[in-house]
Amino acid sequence: MKNVLVLLPLNEEKKQALRERFPECRFSFDGEKTHTAAQIREADILIGFPKPALIGASERLEFLQLSSSGADAFVKPGVLAPGTLLASVTGAYGQAVGEHAFAMTWELLKKLHLYRDDQAKEIWGDRGTVGTLRGATVLVVGLGDIGSEYARLCKAVGARVIGVKRRPSACPDYVDELGLTDELERYLPQADVVCTVLPGTDKTYHLFNAERFAQMKPGSIFINCGRGTAFDADALAEALRNGPLAAAGTDVTEVEPLPAGHPLWKLENMVVTPHISGGFHLPGTLERIEEICFANLEAFLRGGEIRNIIDFSTGYKK
Amino acid sequence: MKNVLVLLPLNEEKKQALRERFPECRFSFDGEKTHTAAQIREADILIGFPKPALIGASERLEFLQLSSSGADAFVKPGVLAPGTLLASVTGAYGQAVGEHAFAMTWELLKKLHLYRDDQAKEIWGDRGTVGTLRGATVLVVGLGDIGSEYARLCKAVGARVIGVKRRPSACPDYVDELGLTDELERYLPQADVVCTVLPGTDKTYHLFNAERFAQMKPGSIFINCGRGTAFDADALAEALRNGPLAAAGTDVTEVEPLPAGHPLWKLENMVVTPHISGGFHLPGTLERIEEICFANLEAFLRGGEIRNIIDFSTGYKK
Repeated sequence: MKNVLVLLPLNEEKKQALRERFPECRFSFDGEKTHTAAQIREADILIGFPKPALIGASERLEFLQLSSSGADAFVKPGVLAPGTLLASVTGAYGQAVGEHAFAMTWELLKKLHLYRDDQAKEIWGDRGTVGTLRGATVLVVGLGDIGSEYARLCKAVGARVIGVKRRPSACPDYVDELGLTDELERYLPQADVVCTVLPGTDKTYHLFNAERFAQMKPGSIFINCGRGTAFDADALAEALRNGPLAAAGTDVTEVEPLPAGHPLWKLENMVVTPHISGGFHLPGTLERIEEICFANLEAFLRGGEIRNIIDFSTGYKK
Repeated sequence: MKNVLVLLPLNEEKKQALRERFPECRFSFDGEKTHTAAQIREADILIGFPKPALIGASERLEFLQLSSSGADAFVKPGVLAPGTLLASVTGAYGQAVGEHAFAMTWELLKKLHLYRDDQAKEIWGDRGTVGTLRGATVLVVGLGDIGSEYARLCKAVGARVIGVKRRPSACPDYVDELGLTDELERYLPQADVVCTVLPGTDKTYHLFNAERFAQMKPGSIFINCGRGTAFDADALAEALRNGPLAAAGTDVTEVEPLPAGHPLWKLENMVVTPHISGGFHLPGTLERIEEICFANLEAFLRGGEIRNIIDFSTGYKK
């Protein structure tokens, strides 16, 4: 009998359904914020988003099914014992995060962040020219589940969409031009909006640095909804102060929470949201996560294809 | 020779082109904020958005071609002499205002206004559940140029769109269900988002009052980008404080600028922008306005169909 520790916020009905579906398991339940190292040491299988530091490379843990899309905190040496199977829930957050990035893009294009600042001071004043996605060129860096959703939305409202990814593939119908991440410098000067949705890996670390920002179009917008390590915060602040960027928005930062007094908090043309675009905020997201997690649990226990297994060497799914 | 006073922000090149295109006119140029009553008294034709109080029902003025979509300030008794021809530029602002309303809708759905407030205080905190337009029901009240553009955008990102208008017509392809403004109470309880884009007329005055807001769905969003007279501000504030509304956004208010200390400035779940969604903020808008204005000038001078003539009895174009 396998010990399964579940850290998803499930109600009693769902817990009971799980016990009935998997009689070969002994389930225990806790929360992402409240679980302990002792609970993890007892687990053969863990489902949810545990604190990496509490796992201690447990030899007992056979399978960690994350409730997140990103797996970067768990591929680092010493977190999981060699041979532990790691899977993510790529696919569950596409809509939620893609829409958040899309909403942020419109917020910045229409200067709604500046008008919100003015509202707090009861200022009825004109902030000047605004932008649009109609006819604009949008560069999406990373065409996974989230990037694809964002690309679809931009295309639907009239943007020309360029997508870049690690490896060549057929061009999806919601992308006008498909390129490789290695060709970024060719595409950056063309884009009115650049949106990065990259996982946190060695290769994506500070991909957006001073050099990349300098290649961007004057007056363009930078959006980041992947990992906070994808951009150099000092370089971004500089590109917002002295150009070429008109504005930027991110849902993630390299250090979270963003430290007090950090320039990204303060710059008027920078919008920061506190890593909330994923999570369970969009109704339906938790259900999609449960579906993927428990289908993988079934495949792991009874044989079948486990989806979204993470390759420890790249940090991406295999 | 006709005296034509133009209040559009034209550069020298465009002024010269006008003189060449219309040799039968004597042009003078000024701005919307700087023109005087004396200038208006000399004009046979006026193009732009004059201050209504300065017109003084000038007997000399034959044709007022507005640079605005709304004509409500000019159909009031005593503003124009009887017989003065009045035309608007319906069509020029559809994209700009429709997109602004769309951006505001996403801002409220994703709580970006609250996260912006938090950013000012350097608060890294979770604001809970968010919404989406995918699968949501959007009710568009007023299907003119702006309402149609908003409807198209919502439909493109997956919403079910209900449109209501004054008079029956064929259902456009970007609307799923078409009804009449008189049937509002049938549609209000179904809508996750209600967007009103109505001109300021006797019939639309405080159309959204306490009764209408009470008919709306709990947790729904109200957006207004037509005229500030379309809703009762006290009733809206009450619906935001005690439900059923989750949030609201408006680009226009009954009194502009919105008076200091007004509840709409202060309510956390209310977003106000200072009547900037139209104007010349979106590049391309001024060019569209010029096109309509000068095509109408040509039709007026040389014969031809004048577009967007305003009916003084309804306040709508004929």
